[in-house]
Amino acid sequence: MTQALAYAATTATSPLAPYKLERREPGQLDVAMDVLFCGVCHSDLHTARSEWGPSNYPVVPGHEIVGRVSAVGDLVTKFKVGDLVGVGCMVDSCQHCATCADGLEQYCENGFTGTYNSPAQGTGENTYGGYSNHIVVRESFVLRISHKEADLAAVAPLLCAGITTFSPLHQWKVGPGHKVGIVGLGGLGHMGVKIAAAMGAYVVLFTTSESKRADALRLGAKEVVVSKNEDEMAKHLNSFDFILNCVAAPHDLDAFLVLLKLDGTMTLVGAPATPHPSPTVFNLILKRRRLAGSLIGGIKETQEMLDFCAKHKILSDIEQIKISEINTAYERMLKGDVKYRFVIDMATIEA
Amino acid sequence: MTQALAYAATTATSPLAPYKLERREPGQLDVAMDVLFCGVCHSDLHTARSEWGPSNYPVVPGHEIVGRVSAVGDLVTKFKVGDLVGVGCMVDSCQHCATCADGLEQYCENGFTGTYNSPAQGTGENTYGGYSNHIVVRESFVLRISHKEADLAAVAPLLCAGITTFSPLHQWKVGPGHKVGIVGLGGLGHMGVKIAAAMGAYVVLFTTSESKRADALRLGAKEVVVSKNEDEMAKHLNSFDFILNCVAAPHDLDAFLVLLKLDGTMTLVGAPATPHPSPTVFNLILKRRRLAGSLIGGIKETQEMLDFCAKHKILSDIEQIKISEINTAYERMLKGDVKYRFVIDMATIEA
Repeated sequence: MTQALAYAATTATSPLAPYKLERREPGQLDVAMDVLFCGVCHSDLHTARSEWGPSNYPVVPGHEIVGRVSAVGDLVTKFKVGDLVGVGCMVDSCQHCATCADGLEQYCENGFTGTYNSPAQGTGENTYGGYSNHIVVRESFVLRISHKEADLAAVAPLLCAGITTFSPLHQWKVGPGHKVGIVGLGGLGHMGVKIAAAMGAYVVLFTTSESKRADALRLGAKEVVVSKNEDEMAKHLNSFDFILNCVAAPHDLDAFLVLLKLDGTMTLVGAPATPHPSPTVFNLILKRRRLAGSLIGGIKETQEMLDFCAKHKILSDIEQIKISEINTAYERMLKGDVKYRFVIDMATIEA
Repeated sequence: MTQALAYAATTATSPLAPYKLERREPGQLDVAMDVLFCGVCHSDLHTARSEWGPSNYPVVPGHEIVGRVSAVGDLVTKFKVGDLVGVGCMVDSCQHCATCADGLEQYCENGFTGTYNSPAQGTGENTYGGYSNHIVVRESFVLRISHKEADLAAVAPLLCAGITTFSPLHQWKVGPGHKVGIVGLGGLGHMGVKIAAAMGAYVVLFTTSESKRADALRLGAKEVVVSKNEDEMAKHLNSFDFILNCVAAPHDLDAFLVLLKLDGTMTLVGAPATPHPSPTVFNLILKRRRLAGSLIGGIKETQEMLDFCAKHKILSDIEQIKISEINTAYERMLKGDVKYRFVIDMATIEA
């Protein structure tokens, strides 16, 4: 066993605090890595505070991990010591169901193993995430990073925010000639704008806040629509091929559904704590529109996303923090006071 | 002008009663026909009673029309006097938008012309439907009937109930090896069962009524599930490729969404007067499921449906009525007391 330094929540109401944990020695198919950076996702906060049902404490959050390989098991072929690697929301899955065989481990029929607060395959032991200076992950869930080393901190959020937006854009074949809407300019939405623009789509960003207009244009949107402005919205009726809705707060889906053209799809990647107002069935029927959902992405697709982002020089816009600042970062995240992702510099963790 | 006998509602609260109207002389591209049979659709009742917003009176309902050609315009090439023909929910559309060019007139960007209670293209005059012994329709909205003449009454409902269910099954490529659910065994659902079974799918019928079990199996379902029975429902979790939801009354969509497998779609063809309870977003996200809508079908697809049904000997299960019985039929339809479609024998209309 190797001792790792971490930050953990020990109850639903306690702040994150320094914590020491044991990582397994790498098995034959395992990759051990020193964590360099870890992004801060809303899910981290929800889980630390048991907001999605009771968590298994201690909770060591973090599933936007970038690290450097420190050891590999005997049978590992894809990575060697010194490689730059990433780990996202999953560290394992059953690996034998039809869905895993299709490279869609996020929909594993037997349930994937989350990077934190999840029972490990076989042992059932609780998993601990990337708010830690060391982690051991099976090779098949480790991603190759081909971005420049200087950009690593801004690569970390690709492992969750990047793949969560890339996957539905990719699945619905967004590309040149498509008009694509992105709803919400936060951690997910700002990645959605960058990726959809790089895919060649004409991107329109929807926001409730006039103050985000300049930023959205800088990130790659061709137009920005303040969704509270009905006249602005009406100009876009029946015109979108695809809308990626990144807003988790309950809101009126109809306002966006009517913007889809015939056979258009709106995919939701945010799950509200209380339901959205019920969408009007006529809006689906009258243009054969679709409302869909999407969950992160499979490992194969995550590698494609990382390679795509490296090729197109896509990074997250981040604010780098020390791990001792994590509790303050959570409070600021709750207020939307971050552009657009906090990333922990793991060199700041102290023994 | 040719005088036609009809039944019309003259106000939202008056019963249907005999009415005389003028049909235009067939223009160069028109087909005139004697109506032989007309199916009775829920939409007829909603429109006669202004339940979908104020109707334009008099309302002569009826959009499941089977007739025999009595005259054709000079430029008509596809039909001749004596041919058996059908007319569905549309009698015209703009014919120049991209959607019309794609054969999807039901989604015409300028609005299609309904067979009744709709402003005619150009003149804006109110259209009168198939509760009438004579109608004139432009050739491009007339369908060819290749069923046996003895079956004509049972063909009529294919023009609305048939195409409304065929189109989404066809669009989502239902076929052998697919497990398909049909929700609700009424006018639409009973056609959905027959058509999906003929397409080669394994069909499961969902009903709230145990009494419909035998009928559903007779119509082609392989299994019947009483949707109030949670144990029965649970056996089908994550197993459906496609579900066609034919129920217009507000109900819990989640109960069916969770039965879809990865990437499965549920298409709604019934529009409730008040919203369904809001579907749970997690049910869409966790299996990348889709909730969609569909509206009747285009003319090209309607002809494909009629030819498919003729080939597979598919007819509607009907109860034939005299037109003087129409008001009683409406009351029985409201109680669900029909297996599964009333069809008016237009020979019973009297001068």
